Amino acid sequence: MATVLSDIEIARAAKKKPIRDVAARLGIAEDDLVPYGRDKAKISAEFIRSLDGRPDGKLILVTAINPTPAGEGKTTTTVGLGDGLNRIGKRSAICIREASLGPCFGVKGGAAGGGYAQVIPMEDMNLHFTGDFHAITSAHNLLAALVDNHIYWGNRQAIDTRRVTWRRVLDMNDRALRQIVSSLGGVPNGYPRETGFDITVASEVMAILCLARDLEDLEARLGRIVVASRVDRSPVTAADIGAAGAMAVLLKDALQPNLVQTLENNPAFVHGGPFANIAHGCNSVLATKTALKLADYVVTEAGFGADLGAEKFFDIKCRIAGLKPAASVIVATVRALKMNGGVPKDELGREDVDAVKRGAANLGRHIENVKSFGVPVVVAINHFGTDTDAEIEAVKRYTAGLGVEAVLCRHWAEGSAGITELAEKVAAMADHGADNFAPLYPDDMPLWEKIETVVKRIYRGAEATAERSVHALLADFEARGHGHLPVCMAKTQYSFSTDPSLLGAPSGHSVHVREVRLSAGAGFVVAICGEIMTMPGLPRSPAAERIFLNEAGQIEGLF
Amino acid sequence: MATVLSDIEIARAAKKKPIRDVAARLGIAEDDLVPYGRDKAKISAEFIRSLDGRPDGKLILVTAINPTPAGEGKTTTTVGLGDGLNRIGKRSAICIREASLGPCFGVKGGAAGGGYAQVIPMEDMNLHFTGDFHAITSAHNLLAALVDNHIYWGNRQAIDTRRVTWRRVLDMNDRALRQIVSSLGGVPNGYPRETGFDITVASEVMAILCLARDLEDLEARLGRIVVASRVDRSPVTAADIGAAGAMAVLLKDALQPNLVQTLENNPAFVHGGPFANIAHGCNSVLATKTALKLADYVVTEAGFGADLGAEKFFDIKCRIAGLKPAASVIVATVRALKMNGGVPKDELGREDVDAVKRGAANLGRHIENVKSFGVPVVVAINHFGTDTDAEIEAVKRYTAGLGVEAVLCRHWAEGSAGITELAEKVAAMADHGADNFAPLYPDDMPLWEKIETVVKRIYRGAEATAERSVHALLADFEARGHGHLPVCMAKTQYSFSTDPSLLGAPSGHSVHVREVRLSAGAGFVVAICGEIMTMPGLPRSPAAERIFLNEAGQIEGLF
Repeated sequence: MATVLSDIEIARAAKKKPIRDVAARLGIAEDDLVPYGRDKAKISAEFIRSLDGRPDGKLILVTAINPTPAGEGKTTTTVGLGDGLNRIGKRSAICIREASLGPCFGVKGGAAGGGYAQVIPMEDMNLHFTGDFHAITSAHNLLAALVDNHIYWGNRQAIDTRRVTWRRVLDMNDRALRQIVSSLGGVPNGYPRETGFDITVASEVMAILCLARDLEDLEARLGRIVVASRVDRSPVTAADIGAAGAMAVLLKDALQPNLVQTLENNPAFVHGGPFANIAHGCNSVLATKTALKLADYVVTEAGFGADLGAEKFFDIKCRIAGLKPAASVIVATVRALKMNGGVPKDELGREDVDAVKRGAANLGRHIENVKSFGVPVVVAINHFGTDTDAEIEAVKRYTAGLGVEAVLCRHWAEGSAGITELAEKVAAMADHGADNFAPLYPDDMPLWEKIETVVKRIYRGAEATAERSVHALLADFEARGHGHLPVCMAKTQYSFSTDPSLLGAPSGHSVHVREVRLSAGAGFVVAICGEIMTMPGLPRSPAAERIFLNEAGQIEGLF
Repeated sequence: MATVLSDIEIARAAKKKPIRDVAARLGIAEDDLVPYGRDKAKISAEFIRSLDGRPDGKLILVTAINPTPAGEGKTTTTVGLGDGLNRIGKRSAICIREASLGPCFGVKGGAAGGGYAQVIPMEDMNLHFTGDFHAITSAHNLLAALVDNHIYWGNRQAIDTRRVTWRRVLDMNDRALRQIVSSLGGVPNGYPRETGFDITVASEVMAILCLARDLEDLEARLGRIVVASRVDRSPVTAADIGAAGAMAVLLKDALQPNLVQTLENNPAFVHGGPFANIAHGCNSVLATKTALKLADYVVTEAGFGADLGAEKFFDIKCRIAGLKPAASVIVATVRALKMNGGVPKDELGREDVDAVKRGAANLGRHIENVKSFGVPVVVAINHFGTDTDAEIEAVKRYTAGLGVEAVLCRHWAEGSAGITELAEKVAAMADHGADNFAPLYPDDMPLWEKIETVVKRIYRGAEATAERSVHALLADFEARGHGHLPVCMAKTQYSFSTDPSLLGAPSGHSVHVREVRLSAGAGFVVAICGEIMTMPGLPRSPAAERIFLNEAGQIEGLF
């Protein structure tokens, strides 16, 4: 039996091609690349502009059942499917999100796939990469500094200092910064007030970068960010503070998509990474649109399970960017289905066909939901060593009953060779043109109705509830001209309900909207249902303590 | 008469060479470069290791009289002299510091030289450049997060939470963060305590990166950083917290020197940028040593005037790195000498030979000081349009009386053609071998005596004073094995005294040491004399409000 190598060992053994060779396969000349080392590059704005008018490739979404501690392998499947499509002769590229630096030093593994379906260089992806997140941190914090500076020097905008909503960000897990009092120390340091830090991926600037069409659109969106209220409760924007131009200057390079490669030397666009709760959780529009101009098939993923990730992908990203997905893949594992079927984590190794059947209800619900957007669906069973034939058969029979194929995929262990069947089916589905995509609700539906629509049609709740103050705030957003925006639901990723322990396919529950926030720059209204953490902490024994450089100067302990 | 172009116009009109061509002139192959775009690159660690055993070129320090609002042009002269040496056929490179992002959005101009003596790409240099400062920010703040996390999860090291000295940093001018209370919000967020943020250039991690010999030395120095005291007053280090390995991983790429070019396509190493008050204010040892292996003449600069900059360059950087400067240039302008002679800023355009003569005392003092380190001196008069022949003649006569030549330089207006005379003299001086460098004091002198030595021999003060607690702390540092470290003086850059308004050449003053701090990682003891600001604020009308991208996507308003 072959020795199982770790992700980092596999990645290190990979034969990387110069990034210019990877780019050349997409028709990108060396002059149109901005290199970052020999294995990473940004694609120039001029080149991207030159693609206008070219036909688009087919867009394929990879989404998943609700995540469980057992894992489902969404990024791994995205990478594997991209390699699989290339293997069967389809000119393909993948589009995934960049990794946040903060969680790497806590408990999280890398965000570059796994096994023989990885994006490389994985070390760079999980550290500074091309500096995009640092640029976002800088732009976000420049706005914060300018707001406090504005108040300090006379407060011409009459900002109510109790109502500054713009916090600061760091790409770090640091619970000590969640809630602070700033500007202590008297006259030279300004006006003390309560505020705090979020992690950079939670920044509205991150969401803006990922939804902007181009540099001009980026600056316009930055200008629309609401940072505070005036004494008369009217909103103060970044444009009011004079910050948008300098923020755009800081983000100029970060806006350009990054190109790297998979273990099999196929092109991978890795760009942007907004939170999937208070933001939309998808890679950048600019990367996706660029990939669609250069490849015949573009495989991308969305955050969390399909209830959050796919819904936001369709209703926020595709709506804003005018994208039309041609097919979608829902990833499931036998282990995660068993957990949804009630099996405790330490008993997942034992065959339990009944539990698989029970847990498949979760998968079934996601299939129905994704189909309701007019997008054809295929299920990828991401294979684990402990899966039995009977369990796999149970999944296939279950989805067949819904008119959907489930395909066993072995890309983690075998790379593209293990996923050609799925690749063939996805390509055929995308080519067949059976897609008929439409978002869930129209732009002109009132904001509260949009929330209710997602709750009832996607979460299968009986009702959405909220305090009077939430309704009043939504009415205020509408009165100020933001009623046309889509809603961005922030709820637990573990359940269709707001109770993370309610696995499977619950229905008839009540979804309470605790708070609503306007992300006027990004272009959505966030509806917060339950506790959402926007600044993680480090665990008792953080990974940072085990990360170091070995004698060869290689990074150990990061993954 | 020719139109005078702005710095940014000159920089944009420059014909940049591909950085591989600039590197090739130094004998660096393309494979030994890590490109960041086509006009910036890092030099690989492997290549730098391969240089071991090669002979070193001559090291030339550019320093200056005490800075005044009239400006003296130290960086501009460093760039100009490097170009001048290359013009007269001497294989030369320059080594300067990277720019801090924070001040760019406040009032400060760029940090890449000026006129026809600039380093390009100047926009990148003044923004994210190759991400080094962001990496330092991350490494610094990871340590801070790990300290608070350590306390949160049981505080095995018995840290006295009132005595956590490690603050956080951002590369931003943000007075609201100078003094904060962190960890508010109850149980999940930890133990509230007073703390704050400094600007990234004030981070000890920055000083460490600039003094480290290699990656191994970097990690060892990071481990020695003192972050807090225990309840028993013993120091807690970054190594005690288990942070050094992960910090080194974050700094791995940042440690490699950056190569760019001057307007005349000559090589420029731009790497590191520690504060010149609480740190030593010089570019990295690794960049300087690499440049010395690759060029026959290496021109570098030190922060502020020679009383702070040159003294620290000699006593900290040269001592720690074993460097032996062969010559030094003291930059002066007629305008700044007139200010030192008592002329108000708005009357500097009027000829005043007597004021020049009076102000020359400041220059004379610096000449004596630099010579006392055994380093030969030449004075560069950085020409301004309002200078008269009589004023320039007065400077030349004054320095001749001290046995030192003063050379008029027109590099700002003319590039290398305007500075060949200085280049010839500097090269001759360096080749002549009259240097006999030695630091001011030996390693084994007690810390307080080191402070007194700098105060008396360099500042020409009558005495250094301090409270009993300062003496007790120095005794504690010595008892814990740090007595061999050099001292890093933090005082005003405007005067030899601690009174910024006392221009010229004061003597007999008393220098009060308000506080001492141990930078055990960087390897020096900071003596703070007067108020030192480690987090700047933004002005009433910050430059950020006027920085934007024009229709061609070019940056406006940054300089």
